[in-house]
This record gives sequence, C-alpha cells and structure tokens, in this order.
Amino acid sequence: MPTSFLGSALRGTFFFIFGLWWSVRYPLKYLRQKGNAESRPSHGAQRVEIFEGAVKAFFALAGILVEQFVPAGPHLQLYSTKTHGWTDLAHWHYTTMYLFFLLSGIGDIVSHCRLKLPLGLDRLSLSVALFTEGLLFCFYDYGDALLDHHLHSLLAMAVFSGAFCALLEVFLRDHIILETFRTSSFLLQGSWFWQIGFVLSPPWGGPGWDQTDRSNFTFLTMCFCWHYVGTLAVLAANSAASRCCNESCQLRFQDVDVELDCGICRRGNKSSNSALLPESTLDDK
Amino acid sequence: MPTSFLGSALRGTFFFIFGLWWSVRYPLKYLRQKGNAESRPSHGAQRVEIFEGAVKAFFALAGILVEQFVPAGPHLQLYSTKTHGWTDLAHWHYTTMYLFFLLSGIGDIVSHCRLKLPLGLDRLSLSVALFTEGLLFCFYDYGDALLDHHLHSLLAMAVFSGAFCALLEVFLRDHIILETFRTSSFLLQGSWFWQIGFVLSPPWGGPGWDQTDRSNFTFLTMCFCWHYVGTLAVLAANSAASRCCNESCQLRFQDVDVELDCGICRRGNKSSNSALLPESTLDDK
Amino acid sequence: MPTSFLGSALRGTFFFIFGLWWSVRYPLKYLRQKGNAESRPSHGAQRVEIFEGAVKAFFALAGILVEQFVPAGPHLQLYSTKTHGWTDLAHWHYTTMYLFFLLSGIGDIVSHCRLKLPLGLDRLSLSVALFTEGLLFCFYDYGDALLDHHLHSLLAMAVFSGAFCALLEVFLRDHIILETFRTSSFLLQGSWFWQIGFVLSPPWGGPGWDQTDRSNFTFLTMCFCWHYVGTLAVLAANSAASRCCNESCQLRFQDVDVELDCGICRRGNKSSNSALLPESTLDDK
Amino acid sequence: MPTSFLGSALRGTFFFIFGLWWSVRYPLKYLRQKGNAESRPSHGAQRVEIFEGAVKAFFALAGILVEQFVPAGPHLQLYSTKTHGWTDLAHWHYTTMYLFFLLSGIGDIVSHCRLKLPLGLDRLSLSVALFTEGLLFCFYDYGDALLDHHLHSLLAMAVFSGAFCALLEVFLRDHIILETFRTSSFLLQGSWFWQIGFVLSPPWGGPGWDQTDRSNFTFLTMCFCWHYVGTLAVLAANSAASRCCNESCQLRFQDVDVELDCGICRRGNKSSNSALLPESTLDDK
Repeated sequence: MPTSFLGSALRGTFFFIFGLWWSVRYPLKYLRQKGNAESRPSHGAQRVEIFEGAVKAFFALAGILVEQFVPAGPHLQLYSTKTHGWTDLAHWHYTTMYLFFLLSGIGDIVSHCRLKLPLGLDRLSLSVALFTEGLLFCFYDYGDALLDHHLHSLLAMAVFSGAFCALLEVFLRDHIILETFRTSSFLLQGSWFWQIGFVLSPPWGGPGWDQTDRSNFTFLTMCFCWHYVGTLAVLAANSAASRCCNESCQLRFQDVDVELDCGICRRGNKSSNSALLPESTLDDK
Repeated sequence: MPTSFLGSALRGTFFFIFGLWWSVRYPLKYLRQKGNAESRPSHGAQRVEIFEGAVKAFFALAGILVEQFVPAGPHLQLYSTKTHGWTDLAHWHYTTMYLFFLLSGIGDIVSHCRLKLPLGLDRLSLSVALFTEGLLFCFYDYGDALLDHHLHSLLAMAVFSGAFCALLEVFLRDHIILETFRTSSFLLQGSWFWQIGFVLSPPWGGPGWDQTDRSNFTFLTMCFCWHYVGTLAVLAANSAASRCCNESCQLRFQDVDVELDCGICRRGNKSSNSALLPESTLDDK
Repeated sequence: MPTSFLGSALRGTFFFIFGLWWSVRYPLKYLRQKGNAESRPSHGAQRVEIFEGAVKAFFALAGILVEQFVPAGPHLQLYSTKTHGWTDLAHWHYTTMYLFFLLSGIGDIVSHCRLKLPLGLDRLSLSVALFTEGLLFCFYDYGDALLDHHLHSLLAMAVFSGAFCALLEVFLRDHIILETFRTSSFLLQGSWFWQIGFVLSPPWGGPGWDQTDRSNFTFLTMCFCWHYVGTLAVLAANSAASRCCNESCQLRFQDVDVELDCGICRRGNKSSNSALLPESTLDDK
Repeated sequence: MPTSFLGSALRGTFFFIFGLWWSVRYPLKYLRQKGNAESRPSHGAQRVEIFEGAVKAFFALAGILVEQFVPAGPHLQLYSTKTHGWTDLAHWHYTTMYLFFLLSGIGDIVSHCRLKLPLGLDRLSLSVALFTEGLLFCFYDYGDALLDHHLHSLLAMAVFSGAFCALLEVFLRDHIILETFRTSSFLLQGSWFWQIGFVLSPPWGGPGWDQTDRSNFTFLTMCFCWHYVGTLAVLAANSAASRCCNESCQLRFQDVDVELDCGICRRGNKSSNSALLPESTLDDK
C-alpha cells in the first residue's frame, strides 16, 4: 500500500486524540458515578456525546478532504479513461475508512439529539466503522509487500479488538472495563499508525525498512506489544491524574462550601442550613 | 462459479425485498411499543410473522423451481450416467441454499401457529439457513476464478454477520438494534448479489471483469463498503418515513377521536366519556 | 487418514444413537415442564442423567477397545522399535477421541451423584470432549488426501457447532433451543461419519472416491447440507411423536383420574374431593 | 525458534505452579462459600489476591532477568551495530511475554489495594497478558521449522482458551466452572512448555525430533490431548484432596467447638452460650 508519512501520521493523530480524550473522560465519569450512587445519564453527559460526535465527524471530513485533494490525490476521480484503470485506490481506500467514521459521528449526534433513537445505536455505528476499517485492511491486496501486510495485520488486531469491544457495549452500556479497553485499543491504533509511517515511509526520506528481512517481522510483532505497554502507561497516568484532579476539585468545592456555610452561619446564627454543615465547622463556632 | 445475471438478480431481489420490508416493519413496531409501554406480542404481530414465513417459503420455492427448470438447469437430475459426472452443480448449489430458506419459512409458520413451539425457533431456523448459505459459499471450489472467490468471500461476510445476529436474537428477542442490523445485512446481501451479477456476467453481454487484474480486487472491497453506506441510507430513509407516517397516523386518529368525542358530547351533554376527552375539546364547549 | 468402513460406521452409530435419544428426551422434558410450571430438576431427571453418562462411558470404552484390539489395531503399542516409527496413529487418534467421551461420561455420573459438584460441569466436560475431537480432526496431517481433508473439515463444522452449543449450556442450562441444536449437531455428526465411511472406504470394496476430482468437493459440501435437512426431519418427526405420545398419556391418565374420582363420588356423595373434579364429571351425576 | 531446555522448563514451571495453586484454592473457596451462603469477598480473600499478584510479578521479573542476563542472552541490547541486525530476538520475545505477566501481577496488586479500582480489572489484565502471549506465538516467524510451528500452534490453543476464559470472568466473576477451566488451561500450558523443551532441545543433548517426519505432527497433536487428560487428573485429585481436607478441618473445628462449649457449660451451668450448642452436647449434661 503506497503510504505517505504525513497521511499515516494524520490517521494516527485522529485515533490517538480520541484515545487521550476518553482516557480522561471515562475515569472522571466513573469516579463521579461512584460518588453519587446510581445517577442517570445527565443532560450534560448527552451534550458531551454530541460534542464528541461532532468532533469525530469533523475530523473524518477533514481526513476525506485531505486524502482526496492532496496534490497526489485522486481529486474525486475514480476511473481514469486515459489509463483505463482505477486511479489512486489507496487514497480511495482511506476515504472509505474515514467515511464510516463520518457516519459514526453523525450517528452519535443524531442518537443523542431529541429524536430519542434506540440507545446503543451510537456504539453500533462505532463498531460498524471499526469492523469496516478492519475489513478494508484485511482484504487489501498487498502483493509482494509482505512487511506491509504484516504491519497492517497487526493493526487489524487492534482495530478488531476495538470493534468487538464496541459491539459488546451495545449490550453492556457504561461498563467501565469495556470503556477502558476501547480507549486502550484506540491509543494503540493511533500509535501504531505512526509506527507504520516510520517503517514504510520514514519522514527523513529513504526507502523504508527491508521487506524481505524476516527478523524485521519478529521485531515488529514485539514492537506492537511494547506500543500496548506504552498505551497502558498513558492510560494509567491519565486515570491517576483525573483521580487526583477529581479529589482536589471535590476538596476545593468542599472548602468553598465550608466558607460559604461559615459566612452564612456568622450572619444568621441559627440558620436552617446548619444541619447540612460538617461537624468541624459546627465546632468552630 | 458459472453465474447468469438473471439468477444473481433473482437472489438479490429476494434478499432486498425482505430487507426493505423489515426496514419499515421494525421501526414501526419499535415506535408503537414505545407508545404503549410493555405491550406483549399481540395476535396481529403473530399473523405478520406467519405471513412473512409464508412469503419466505413461497420465494424460496420459486427460487428452487427456477434454478432447477431453467433451460440450462439440471431438471432434478443430479448424476449424469452419460458423462459419468455430476450435472450442473452450481444450480444444485443454489437449490440447496433456497431449500434452507424454505425450511426457515416453514419454521416461521409452524412456530407462530397454535402449536406453541418454543419461542426463538424461528430465529434459530433463520440463523441456520444463513450459516448454511455462508458455508456453501466458503467451501465452494472456485478454482482459478480468484475474483469470483473474492466476490463471494465478501458476500459471506454479509451472510455470516446476518447469521450471527439472528443467532443472538434467539436469546435477545425483540432487540431493536439487532433487528436493525439484521435488516441492514439483508439489504447489503441483496445489493451485493446484484453487483456480483454485473461483475461476473454483465446483462449487456461480454465476458465479465478481468479475473487477474489485482486492482479490481481492491476496488470491489471498497465497493462492498459503499454498498453498505447505501444500505444504511435506505435504512435511515425508511425509518424516518415510518416515523413520520406513524406520527401522522396517530395525529389523524386523534383528530378522528376528537371529532367522534365532540359529536358524542354535543348529543349527550354530560356523558361519562367526557373524562377521556383531551382538554382542548372540553374547552371548545 | 486410513479409514475402515466398520470403524466409521461404529463412530457414526455412537453419535446417532445419542442424537436419537435426545431427540425424544428433550421434547418430552420440555412438554412436562410447560405442564407443571417451574418444576425443579427432579430426582428422576438426575437418574436419567446418570444413566446417560454410564451409557456414554460404556460406548466410549467399547470404542477404545475396538480401536485398539481390532486385528489391524496397535494393541496398545505406541512405538515400534522395529520400524523406529509410531504404530497405527489413526487408531490411536480415535482412541484419544473416545477417551475424552469416556471422561465426559464419568463427569456426567460424578456430577449428578451425591457429591454435589458445581452444576454445569457435565456440560463443560461434553464441550471439552467435542472441542478436543474437533482439534484432533483439524490438526491431523492428511497429506495429499484432499478429499479426506475436505470431508473431515465439514465434520469439524458439525463438531465445533456442537461444542460451542454445549459451552453455552454451561451458562444457559435447560434451554430447549440449545438442547435441540445440540441434538441436531449429534445426529448430523453421526450420519456424516457414515457418509465418510461410504466415500473413503465403500463397504462393497473398491478404492473410494476420486481424491482429485474437484466436482466431488462441491457435491460433498452440498451433501453435508442435505444430511442436515435429513437431521432436521428426524428431529421434527421425533418431536411430533413425543408430543402425541405425551398428550395421549396425559389423556389416559386423565381418564383414569376421572374414573377414580367418579367411583369415589358414587360411594361418598359429598366427598371433599368433588372440588377437584372437572365440570363434566360433576354434570354426570 | 531457538529454544533451550532450561528456558522452556522455567516457563513451564511458572505456569504449572500457578495452575497447582489455583487447583487447591478455588475448590476450597467454593466449598466454604457453599457452607456459609452468599458470603461477600472477605478481607482475607483480598489479601490472597494481592499475595498472588505479588508472586506473579516476582516470577515474571525473575523470568525477564533470566532471559536477558543468561550468558547467551542479549543483556538488554536490542540492536547490534556490529552485525547491523537485531540481537537474540527469541530472548526479547520471551521478555515481552513475561513483561505482560509482570503488568498483570501489578494490576492484581493495585486493583485489590485500597485504591478501589473497578472490579474485573485484574481479570482483564490477565486476559490481555494471555492474548498477547498467544499473539506473540502466532505471529512469530518459524521459517522452515514446521514442527516448531506445530508445537507452538498447539500451545497457542491452550493460551487462547485461557485468555478467552479470563475475559469471560471479567463479566462472570467468581464462577467456579470458569475458574476450574482457567486452572486447567494453565496446567496444560505449563506441562506443554516442558514437552516443547523435550521435543526441540532434549536435556540429554542431541538435535531434537525430526522436523520433517509428518507422523511426529500427528503424534504430538494426540500427545497434547493426553497432557490435557493428565491435567484433568491432577485437577480432580487436588479438588478431592481439598474437599477431604476441608471436611476434616470442619470436623476438627466442630470437635474443638464442642469441647470448648462443654467446658464452658460445666463451669457456668446456665450460661447464655447454651443456646448456640448443638443438641447432643446439651443432652450430655
């Protein structure tokens, strides 16, 4: 598959940004839900989902435009009557991939709007987008480029595990373990797209790695695993950060509450609010 | 696989009609269920299921007859003693495929009759029919016809995803997401059968596409994805149409109710019905 | 795989008998459960399970003995020091297969005894036996015998679908749909073993079918599907028969009840039993 | 894959010890839970989980150090500038495998500490470790070493079945059947690593088995099944032993209780404890 480093980096960034965003969002959601038990999906959560869908659709649209209108791109021309052959199928290939994420983004927006579509449609559309992406990479004709094929097979692993996870979420919604796993699969996909760019078309020029050296295959398999270790490290760091942030927020809010309460207390000595005050502030008086 | 355009179009139409019918039926069912909460499967719904089964069985029977008694068909002859070989295995292949849909249709009819068979048997028989269809396409010997093999591999994807979905429905009955997905897989299968017909035996004659040109493979993989986009568009349009239709129906019925109620009101001034009247009609008086 | 017709027929009979037994037992169990709602697994049902396990273990033991001590068998010798090679691996192969069914039989007996092992262990042991059987057929080295490989690949389909079904039953116990499907997979396996015998080593002698004729492959794939149609027919016939039998039994029992009740009524005119009598018998008086 | 017997034995021992430990722990847990109905995971159980995680992490760390700093190992050097090639990829391969078990161990410790991470994270981390292990063995480039490939394919079966089981446990926690199956898959993996060592690099020296003799393939497939039979035997024996041990413990404790109670009774004639005494001890007085 003829790959440019920039195209690969663009795809990687798309998935990585989503992974990063989820790696902060889901732990925070989980911590808040644990705080106030059995809270229903709020109005705010729905607005976040719509915003997410809009960003996804925008990114996907940008990706389609870049793939089509880059100088070497097909400029929406599919069949060349001059050469009697298909033009730039690799660009069309990625256009198709982005198209499904565009649909998934639109699906997100529509299913969280006031239309009240059946819950789970957003996860299904994400799952379909990922399965299609995996299908495209599996059925692509790599020809002799065995290393290319190997790299995209590993990518397909990450893609399919994410797709399978999103499919499970249709039935098991808001399951923190599944959300964490999906996040990790997106981060892995993102970083692996970067790796593909470095291997097949290094940014410093040159022909890419040797497609025939078998030890490269074994190394890249391991490298894929190390990427996942890195992914898990990012996930753990962001979860810990969001935990700390959440606790310090609550603490600060509590302080604000205490100060507010105290001010109220000082003014009106026996206000009805005092029942809600923590013991310490009552002792202060 | 020796394919005629007409045979392929027939198969495509069979699946597409079912997909279209479901794309209207399931959204309507969902909207009605949402309206009157927790309604049990009514007598009417069962009659629809029986009707569906009868149509399926009729189509399948027609398919079997066409495959067997078309001029080039085997006319129920399996083994030719003249050539000491099997006759027209491709026709027998499709006959077998239709046979399982015939059984599925009979299964639908029987399981919704007064026999009170265990619920879920209709979905199981559909799932078995689809799995068998996929198996037939996977184990077929395509020989050198690589493009033929590629086209039917993609078809098998659509078939197996539908089969898997129907299998899940045995356990998760009346799940709108699963029903929608099954509908989309039928629509995709239908339109892909048409595509197969156009590629392997174009209706305007000629030898079909080049089986050795590798770029055709990549293009057709993408084409499969675009078919699915088209499928989703059809699905969305039909859902929206059935939603509008459902709302306008309810509105009209409400109008009729109001008129009827008003007529009653005018005649008997303080009828016991007035408690059921909407506020507006009461204000009218 | 060097196959004798008798060995193949023996295996087929083993699976077919179990399928036949289940095709009568499960419909009857279902009908009785529907009659008296939410009945717990009775003492009688457990005795049936133990009996089933014992028969399975006995059949498997017989199979092992036949495979080992048939004139051409290995007589428990695994390695021949004379030829410096393994002896009769095909016989050992089937011995291993039977061994797991022996273990499954013992598992059935043990888990329904008074030991009170965790429920579901019997289904797990059956699933393990089937998965192992499938594994053995998948990893067997068929060499050039492509038709042999094709036949056993189809067999493995039946085996794995049964194994998967038994695995689901660990979690969804006493689900009539799953039990029916498992029954059908056993019947299919049984009849396919017979077919393998007829194809590879016909009972009337001769060399078996042509391993290189590709049309045989396509025909046998279809043939596998027709076997499944036959299987479903057997299943439907046995279910219908057990239904009729069950109803006539209940009718006869009811008659007996009525006669007994009437007798009681005639003797003591206002017995306390009369409340339990059907209307018709009360009208008789 | 260049394998040393000691490395293979080390890996085997790692998995086998875990299997053995679980084959005692889970039956005991099950028996205790059955005794006192619906007991919540106690503080003691959590300490056992943390201990298990620590041992797993320690073993994995030891494995990494051995793989890296064995005389023939890569000593943390990945790329040799002298030969312009990767150094000792097989050692790095196993290092990667151990790395994920190290992470799984840390995951166990962290998720059962006071941090209150979402339940199921420990099972997910184990599942990820096993899936990664399987992926590493599947994507490894075995070259011409077909027997090597066959042996590791069989190993991957055991690995993936364990991984799939651990994944199910994320959703179905504390399910005795799943725990038993996971235990058996670990025992099988452990004993199969030993077998691999014996086949590819026998401890008594020599070149290992013939990689081209096809009968070796069939024999080793069967051998894998026999290993599983041995595994099940170990499992059954340990379960029976832990059952006996549990019963004798309870009996002894009961005796101790009785004696203690009697002593109390003799001293204070009508103590409030007497209500808790069994009938027999009350009769004694």
